[in-house]
Amino acid sequence: MAERDQSLLIGIDFGTLSGRAVVVRASDGEELGSAVHEYGHAVMESRLSAGDGRRLGPDWALQNANDYRDVLRSAVPAALADAGVDAGDVVGIGTDFTACTMIPVTDDGTPLSELDEFANDPHAYVKLWKHHAAQPHADRITALAHERDEPWIARYGGLISSEWELAKGLQLFEEAPHVYDAMDRWVEAADWIVWQLCGAYVRNACTAGYKGNYQDGQYPSVEYLEALSPGFGGFIAEKVEHPIGQLGSRAGGLTAEAAAWTGLREGIAVAVGNVDAHVTAPAAQATAPGQMVAIMGTSTCHVVNGAQLREVPGMCGVVDGGIIAGQWGYEAGQSGVGDILGWFVDNCVPGAYEDAARAAGQSVHEYLTSLAEQQDVGAHGLVALDWHSGNRSVLVDHELSGVMVGQTLATTPEDQYRALVESTAFGTRTIVEAFNTAGVAITEFIAAGGLLRNPFLMQVYCDVLGMPISVITSSQGPALGSAIHAAAAAGLYPDVDAAGKAMGRRQEGAYTPNPASVAAYDRLYALYVAVHDHFGRDHRDIMHTLRALRREAHDTTTSKEKA
Amino acid sequence: MAERDQSLLIGIDFGTLSGRAVVVRASDGEELGSAVHEYGHAVMESRLSAGDGRRLGPDWALQNANDYRDVLRSAVPAALADAGVDAGDVVGIGTDFTACTMIPVTDDGTPLSELDEFANDPHAYVKLWKHHAAQPHADRITALAHERDEPWIARYGGLISSEWELAKGLQLFEEAPHVYDAMDRWVEAADWIVWQLCGAYVRNACTAGYKGNYQDGQYPSVEYLEALSPGFGGFIAEKVEHPIGQLGSRAGGLTAEAAAWTGLREGIAVAVGNVDAHVTAPAAQATAPGQMVAIMGTSTCHVVNGAQLREVPGMCGVVDGGIIAGQWGYEAGQSGVGDILGWFVDNCVPGAYEDAARAAGQSVHEYLTSLAEQQDVGAHGLVALDWHSGNRSVLVDHELSGVMVGQTLATTPEDQYRALVESTAFGTRTIVEAFNTAGVAITEFIAAGGLLRNPFLMQVYCDVLGMPISVITSSQGPALGSAIHAAAAAGLYPDVDAAGKAMGRRQEGAYTPNPASVAAYDRLYALYVAVHDHFGRDHRDIMHTLRALRREAHDTTTSKEKA
Repeated sequence: MAERDQSLLIGIDFGTLSGRAVVVRASDGEELGSAVHEYGHAVMESRLSAGDGRRLGPDWALQNANDYRDVLRSAVPAALADAGVDAGDVVGIGTDFTACTMIPVTDDGTPLSELDEFANDPHAYVKLWKHHAAQPHADRITALAHERDEPWIARYGGLISSEWELAKGLQLFEEAPHVYDAMDRWVEAADWIVWQLCGAYVRNACTAGYKGNYQDGQYPSVEYLEALSPGFGGFIAEKVEHPIGQLGSRAGGLTAEAAAWTGLREGIAVAVGNVDAHVTAPAAQATAPGQMVAIMGTSTCHVVNGAQLREVPGMCGVVDGGIIAGQWGYEAGQSGVGDILGWFVDNCVPGAYEDAARAAGQSVHEYLTSLAEQQDVGAHGLVALDWHSGNRSVLVDHELSGVMVGQTLATTPEDQYRALVESTAFGTRTIVEAFNTAGVAITEFIAAGGLLRNPFLMQVYCDVLGMPISVITSSQGPALGSAIHAAAAAGLYPDVDAAGKAMGRRQEGAYTPNPASVAAYDRLYALYVAVHDHFGRDHRDIMHTLRALRREAHDTTTSKEKA
Repeated sequence: MAERDQSLLIGIDFGTLSGRAVVVRASDGEELGSAVHEYGHAVMESRLSAGDGRRLGPDWALQNANDYRDVLRSAVPAALADAGVDAGDVVGIGTDFTACTMIPVTDDGTPLSELDEFANDPHAYVKLWKHHAAQPHADRITALAHERDEPWIARYGGLISSEWELAKGLQLFEEAPHVYDAMDRWVEAADWIVWQLCGAYVRNACTAGYKGNYQDGQYPSVEYLEALSPGFGGFIAEKVEHPIGQLGSRAGGLTAEAAAWTGLREGIAVAVGNVDAHVTAPAAQATAPGQMVAIMGTSTCHVVNGAQLREVPGMCGVVDGGIIAGQWGYEAGQSGVGDILGWFVDNCVPGAYEDAARAAGQSVHEYLTSLAEQQDVGAHGLVALDWHSGNRSVLVDHELSGVMVGQTLATTPEDQYRALVESTAFGTRTIVEAFNTAGVAITEFIAAGGLLRNPFLMQVYCDVLGMPISVITSSQGPALGSAIHAAAAAGLYPDVDAAGKAMGRRQEGAYTPNPASVAAYDRLYALYVAVHDHFGRDHRDIMHTLRALRREAHDTTTSKEKA
């Protein structure tokens, strides 16, 4: 083992809107400094804000890859300065990323969007995790997998998401063949950023398994792919297949160029890439079977290890070693959580509330929370579905959408806000129950992520789940987790698990359930399940038709604009 | 016939929030002047704003009867002044009222709330039409009527509303026996105001039939009432039964006191009371079978004559001579329309929109409309249920509540506003289809009421219904209708129909359907029906449980406050 006492590590968390770098002490995980850099192009959803600014279709979500390099250039030096440490003491760098976020690149890793000929082509840009325009492709992928009885489909809860490598790849193949042909590699952003750091492309085991359909050493077959779309049979061999790197291992040494960007020493260890959620588990000392970590923010991702392989309906995936070596790593997720509350605050709250919040020196979220938390459970008479961004688990259907049931003329903004908070907690409960039912018993629920800052919301989750909630005590869990991976990659600890035990931390039983609220929420949850199953299982056609009508109307509007 | 050329009439429309008096010329219905008086106590929904201000339960809605007298004192003289006419030329006065709006009074018509001993008792006040706290009573009334196979239940679409005389009376009997015992008469406000004008209590045929279960000359039997609640058997004989006055006939002459309030001549004809919706039919020249008049405002009431008696599912009622002599008068209704849009504007629209509306010199309604009308049908991806005030037709269930389906993170305020406008149009279509299916063919749809001011909304209705819409050309339809009734009562015309033909007016085909929109709305309407039937027929338990949880939480809050 290398010397831990003086050694420092850099962890970088690439989120949806910004990247955060943290300087961490190897001996105990103490966070010495940090800095955030917001992406210059944020998320491009209605128009391309690069290139010629052309209009995007519904459900598109793009990013500009160079914004990620800017995080290396800005946030890393700023974090070092914030920590007031000697950059020479940093011995390793680890990263985590949103996923599945895909970049079409040339052989040397150049994003196609950086070539002049493709600068105005939306398909040449980064497709962010929440790009949901490949839903028709995902539907065909899932249907054909069942039809052909493909062995890997059960590993993904029976459904392949429109967010993943294959669906986004098929959309690219069919909608932009010229971009597809020009692309040498179809790369996860998690691996692309490591490529930028160490000059080598290493495909990480986590996204290859969860997002890339890689199971038991194999990808979907040429025959399957060719049946999916004639000419697509070479997708894996030509664009995807590449040696796999295990989590926590060394991808390579920091290049001179990346050393210049960051101010770090050339040649220090760069860890294999990883995903924001999965990397948080060791940061919360939550890698034992049954410890479910929920990373609650814009969306929520749930990761939990299990000793055995089980089929959990609607899970996003189960991957051998997907979180930590030697365990089956399970993943589930809620596509929208914090962003639903954000949408509500931006679009559904009257000016008088905004004024009152300002007068009270509170954000609108804080003001609505202060009103909502005074209510008894059920007083608003509402039940909502948290599907504004679709449903990842347990239904895996991005054509679903939000619902609010029970509005009267007496319904207030805080009523609806509280109902939305509760709907996301009910969504979490459906996931926990699906795991329990499938034989992956959830023994501890550990919360991480930005929504920890709202104690009311956390108590709602605790009462809805009817179990205590532990919390990660680092406010920068993913970045800390990336630093833990860097510590393993740099050889400071024998593996990620050992590094996590030394450097991670959590508070057990931070929230405990209120029995009266638990009983009341059981009754509201029964209504949630009824509405959930109606729109999500028995009559998906309702929301699917609404989406179809919306698309048709959008096409009409577009042709009118062109005319 | 008396001399029409110099004769004037006063029509007064008592609405939910104000009373409007209009001075009308007998010869041609020309409106010479008008004035509005807003009720001082408006609607008391959360607390009694008279008496000691005590808190009201959920779903209560009270008024203060003296506010109605203030309309006589203020609006009538102001209307005369506005018209610049000689009050001595006024030969008759007619009134219409919200219904069913009930007042417990003593033998001389004094509201119990005006007696010192009852001033703090909510049950002694006027129960406004939208007081919905008697729902449990209405449920029992309906269930027992079916159980005993009562002959009158089919006349009300198989369901008795919580708004009506019997449900409100039963609530009074059971919850406030001291008030019930002290009450000599249980009087419709429509008749009470006539009592104030002419000093005589005359029970009008319209509300007796539609709201008072009076059919074929009979009320519900003593046995039925006693089975409903022991001791309630005397309700009809002791509190309700009274000679019936036919619509358009003379109730009596204006008293000296009322002449002093209004500035009119003592002894002029006072017409039998009537209801705002029903009185509008002659004002729109729409009394022929199949001409459906929709009075669209806070709520919408639909009235249509039919030559035969039919059972229309979910209709509010069918009454022989309920609109005009010699026809079966059918009534249906939507409990919430304009008030749903008002609720949305007050509770769900961000400050930035309020600012933009102000900058554009528009109301928020106008601003949202200007944005919503630019959309193609279906572009918002939403479908809503218009049940924020419950559902009168075709489901007759005030425990139902609003729904919004299809929200995404891209959903805007104008999207939701448009979806709510459409939901009320879909609600109207379910009513029109129920009449057509039952054999009361709707041959013309005539719109009246405040929502006529929004041409976008009217076009949505036209496209959703797929038929032309005629409009009443008076902006004061009910008050004009009341004046038409006064003309008949004063003997200026042989009957209301003849008076309406001379004094009423409408524009045929004011809106015509757009075929492309009609086709698109047919598809959206199919989704509305699916959601409507799920929550309103197959699974009413969902919204009923939400209401029950809300009531329980309200009780918990109240006991906490008392403790």
